[in-house]
Amino acid sequence: MSNDGPLFIDEYVKLHPVDLADRLERLSPGERAELLTNLPLETAAAALAEVYDDQFEELTEGLSTDRLVELVGELEHDDAADILGEFREERREELLEALPNEVSDPIEELLRHPEDTAGGIMNDRFITLSRTDTVKECLAHLREQKDRSRVDITYLYVIDEERRLVGIVPLRELVFSKPDGHIEEIMVRQVQFLRVDDDQEEVARRFDDYRYMALPVLDRSGKLVGVIDANDAFEVAQEEATEDMQLMVGLSGEERFSTPWKTSLRRRLPWLFVNLATAFLAAIVVGFFEETIAKWTALAVFLPIVAGQGGNAGMQTLTVIIRDMALGDLEPGDGKRALFKETLLGLLHGIAIGMVVGLIGWAWKGSPELGLIAGAAMLLNLLAAALSGVLIPFGLKALKIDPALASSIILTTVTDVAGFFFFLSLGAWAIKNMN
Amino acid sequence: MSNDGPLFIDEYVKLHPVDLADRLERLSPGERAELLTNLPLETAAAALAEVYDDQFEELTEGLSTDRLVELVGELEHDDAADILGEFREERREELLEALPNEVSDPIEELLRHPEDTAGGIMNDRFITLSRTDTVKECLAHLREQKDRSRVDITYLYVIDEERRLVGIVPLRELVFSKPDGHIEEIMVRQVQFLRVDDDQEEVARRFDDYRYMALPVLDRSGKLVGVIDANDAFEVAQEEATEDMQLMVGLSGEERFSTPWKTSLRRRLPWLFVNLATAFLAAIVVGFFEETIAKWTALAVFLPIVAGQGGNAGMQTLTVIIRDMALGDLEPGDGKRALFKETLLGLLHGIAIGMVVGLIGWAWKGSPELGLIAGAAMLLNLLAAALSGVLIPFGLKALKIDPALASSIILTTVTDVAGFFFFLSLGAWAIKNMN
Repeated sequence: MSNDGPLFIDEYVKLHPVDLADRLERLSPGERAELLTNLPLETAAAALAEVYDDQFEELTEGLSTDRLVELVGELEHDDAADILGEFREERREELLEALPNEVSDPIEELLRHPEDTAGGIMNDRFITLSRTDTVKECLAHLREQKDRSRVDITYLYVIDEERRLVGIVPLRELVFSKPDGHIEEIMVRQVQFLRVDDDQEEVARRFDDYRYMALPVLDRSGKLVGVIDANDAFEVAQEEATEDMQLMVGLSGEERFSTPWKTSLRRRLPWLFVNLATAFLAAIVVGFFEETIAKWTALAVFLPIVAGQGGNAGMQTLTVIIRDMALGDLEPGDGKRALFKETLLGLLHGIAIGMVVGLIGWAWKGSPELGLIAGAAMLLNLLAAALSGVLIPFGLKALKIDPALASSIILTTVTDVAGFFFFLSLGAWAIKNMN
Repeated sequence: MSNDGPLFIDEYVKLHPVDLADRLERLSPGERAELLTNLPLETAAAALAEVYDDQFEELTEGLSTDRLVELVGELEHDDAADILGEFREERREELLEALPNEVSDPIEELLRHPEDTAGGIMNDRFITLSRTDTVKECLAHLREQKDRSRVDITYLYVIDEERRLVGIVPLRELVFSKPDGHIEEIMVRQVQFLRVDDDQEEVARRFDDYRYMALPVLDRSGKLVGVIDANDAFEVAQEEATEDMQLMVGLSGEERFSTPWKTSLRRRLPWLFVNLATAFLAAIVVGFFEETIAKWTALAVFLPIVAGQGGNAGMQTLTVIIRDMALGDLEPGDGKRALFKETLLGLLHGIAIGMVVGLIGWAWKGSPELGLIAGAAMLLNLLAAALSGVLIPFGLKALKIDPALASSIILTTVTDVAGFFFFLSLGAWAIKNMN
């Protein structure tokens, strides 16, 4: 945008909610509170639905509780639940109590589910039909609730007397079927569905595998409790990918450029200390060999090469494995195949890189022994890198920990420790045997 | 699946296409060719639509050209285009020529667009209306083409005489409007759309920002040429995330666990050699200080700590920046704010980590000077890490290169070189001044 300054109210109203949300974030707290109070309720709520859930509270600071309640009440139930889920418990209860029951009940229902499960992702904007109704009755029913509900409907859901899902009917099918036919006759019976407690990774995977525009969500007894649209799944997939990328390197999984620096500091620093502890492991290995290095300082020059290559090659393996696990392309049973492939690659990479490093070591320092040692250590370390690139995520997964968690920190510890150990112990052995 | 062995044809037919595709991948080439020849055409094509585009050719090896043409002809046009896009040119031309024109023409039309643009992603399964038609006429028109077209329709697209998009009509709206009303009266005029040459990153971003179930794609003259559904966008977002994660560490962006090892080797090894070249830069820095290390070997012990911490902290910054750029949350104009925040964090991390490292250095080696030097080098390197974590992706972007490309390789080079340089030159200076 060329003009980022404040606008008149009627100019803000004309903006698309996404752009208005963008503007809101750039205003001062005072300006923002004033604007959110004076904008038409619908406009303000539409914009706030577009901000990140955990920024809502900050962006509505300074608003009266009455106005805040009005705004939350205007949101879609699933958006309201996501946002209220980020509030402190007392504040959340306070706002829910101030809302009329017909609004707070469905929000509280959605809030019961953890945010990273199908139940936490689903929305309650779906339309149900009864299997025994006729097509004509259903169309009349749909027409009646027109104003209350969404326009972007693709499927309708057929339930029995206990609200159990028994089939789906594409809207198109409904429109073009004989008016006196029964829903039972036109519904699709074999329906893919999600369980309310399915993990969000499973949700993303299901939309990846099956190209539906929406999937129904059932509770344990088979009752239809919500729907996840392809665009909900889209957001989930984006969050999952962000989380995996971040967890690998020691970030919280939810950090963004716009995260306040204090929050970033509080979340990143602990991981840096974890990394520090692991770095000391590598340092201790080097410490064992201080005498060796004192006798042959050229070894110190090759330390970063052996360790660095191991780290990079290990990250290649790790990244492929973690991503394929997240996408559901790599199952626990594939561990052996993955290990075989990556070990083979590690061996071949090791031979190629090891030979080049060996030759350079020889040429640079004029010592064939140094070349031989560096090359051999490189080969061994690239094998260690390949093994740990596979074993770390599979191991974390077996421990029921997110396979991405701090995996690059663990990996570089292994490749540093292994690289230093192989290289320096070969060096120590050579010194002993050369003299 | 508990039983992975071959099944009888009629058992394969009962599988969901996704599961059948999974089975296909696990069969031997001979078994696979036989199965794909004997399965009903529709079943075989549905399964092949589910495999990765670049695996299609391998999986159909050994099939007669006639059968292959039949299979391709049975696919959705956009799937066929994606798959044929992976074939060698002559083979692609051969298959296209063998197809009837009414199938090959739309596929060739879709093939004209690069696969990573809106044109390469869009499908041609959309239904158009004329603004001057009545609701009744449109419904009759829709009913007629019922068999030929998809059931998961959410929106219909209104075009003028030149096929330019003038509005959209949700199917639901059409169904419940007065039969003798005109489309013009019920259509939504302010429509979000994509351009045929928009990059796939822009496509993902638009679905992220605006929660539509589908977006129309227009050519330069405003003509409607395709539609991207939320589930197409879902796949794109997954691919984009995979690509970014992989490019960062020196992978092709398209590698999977199932990629043949020869392909993996060919794609990974060049990046390992790039990393080797950059590792030598770091080694050269250490080489400058060989004498320093010979005099004070304890320095060698702290090298991996200073460099390793810089690498990890830099990766934290880099990962946040690259992901936020991909999601469209960080624009080129935000560079200064990002640099300020990350520098501040680098400073604070540097003070915290630097103090701890300094104290440990003092305690472990009994040398307050070593502690001071290690601490100071740590502070400087964490600042360098923060700066390069921001400047590398912004720099690559300014050069019109993907900001993720090899960014972790570049970053660790900077943090290794800077870390070694700061630490060892402080060490050299201390030796000179202590004696």
